[in-house]
Amino acid sequence: MKNEDTLKRLKTITGHMGGVVRMVEEDAYCIDVIRQIQAVQAALNKVSAAILENHLNSCVTTAIRGEDPLERERVMREITDVFESATKV
Amino acid sequence: MKNEDTLKRLKTITGHMGGVVRMVEEDAYCIDVIRQIQAVQAALNKVSAAILENHLNSCVTTAIRGEDPLERERVMREITDVFESATKV
Amino acid sequence: MKNEDTLKRLKTITGHMGGVVRMVEEDAYCIDVIRQIQAVQAALNKVSAAILENHLNSCVTTAIRGEDPLERERVMREITDVFESATKV
Amino acid sequence: MKNEDTLKRLKTITGHMGGVVRMVEEDAYCIDVIRQIQAVQAALNKVSAAILENHLNSCVTTAIRGEDPLERERVMREITDVFESATKV
Repeated sequence: MKNEDTLKRLKTITGHMGGVVRMVEEDAYCIDVIRQIQAVQAALNKVSAAILENHLNSCVTTAIRGEDPLERERVMREITDVFESATKV
Repeated sequence: MKNEDTLKRLKTITGHMGGVVRMVEEDAYCIDVIRQIQAVQAALNKVSAAILENHLNSCVTTAIRGEDPLERERVMREITDVFESATKV
Repeated sequence: MKNEDTLKRLKTITGHMGGVVRMVEEDAYCIDVIRQIQAVQAALNKVSAAILENHLNSCVTTAIRGEDPLERERVMREITDVFESATKV
Repeated sequence: MKNEDTLKRLKTITGHMGGVVRMVEEDAYCIDVIRQIQAVQAALNKVSAAILENHLNSCVTTAIRGEDPLERERVMREITDVFESATKV
């Protein structure tokens, strides 16, 4: 199941975040903390892309093959929106 | 035509880039130059999202409604790829 | 203490990540999950910037006022590096 | 001169933007256009980082060694600001 893979990755990232919390508790060097935060963000990008891929293969495909033009427009607008936001985080 | 809008925006951004070149030629303050570069990048994000929206409404829709599963997979993979890259630029 | 503020924010973000895990466990809509991930990333950006600000006011200031040119160069290179990486996550 | 290098890179990027305009005029494949825009953005990130490095070695160093605490605070705040914006473009 694809969902299991997403869950596993998100749990790993949450664990990584716990590690960043400990680094700050132990007064780690600022730049090292920032680098770990950037690693967490890169991992979040990968999992977002995987979730989007699932979405394209399920909901979006159903909508595009469906008969409802408003629903088609809605799902496409959502993809454009998350794409535009992706560049802002 | 949608294409005309994309072209117009890209030409405006190219003009903006010319302005950044002039700022550096005239020894503008570094931080002001960086801010103008960031403004150019934000404008590029918007035009990318608009191009993606056109693409979803044309090529992707055609592929998803079509009979070729490999072609469907190819167009979806491309979208996931540009989404993932979007977060890295 | 500034550190306390950073810690508190990072713990809040870790809690937010736990919420994203639960959303996926409960089969939330893909686009909503992606949006929550993007919110986590935006919060991580803010905390990174705050950590950098502390760093500039402490280690970087000490290095720049110090007598060791290699150390000065090292801290500045680190800032340029995390700035460049910042745009890639 | 460092400035010459910045200028040269910015002019190359402006030329690259002209190439993207031509791609759209010639009706290139949407995804290829998006990829070229992302390449332009990556190049802009690199030149921004180089400009920041110069800035750290000149204005910021002068301010930190100077006697004016408000000026020191101002230059550091600017760096934190462009760092935070960097993640949003």
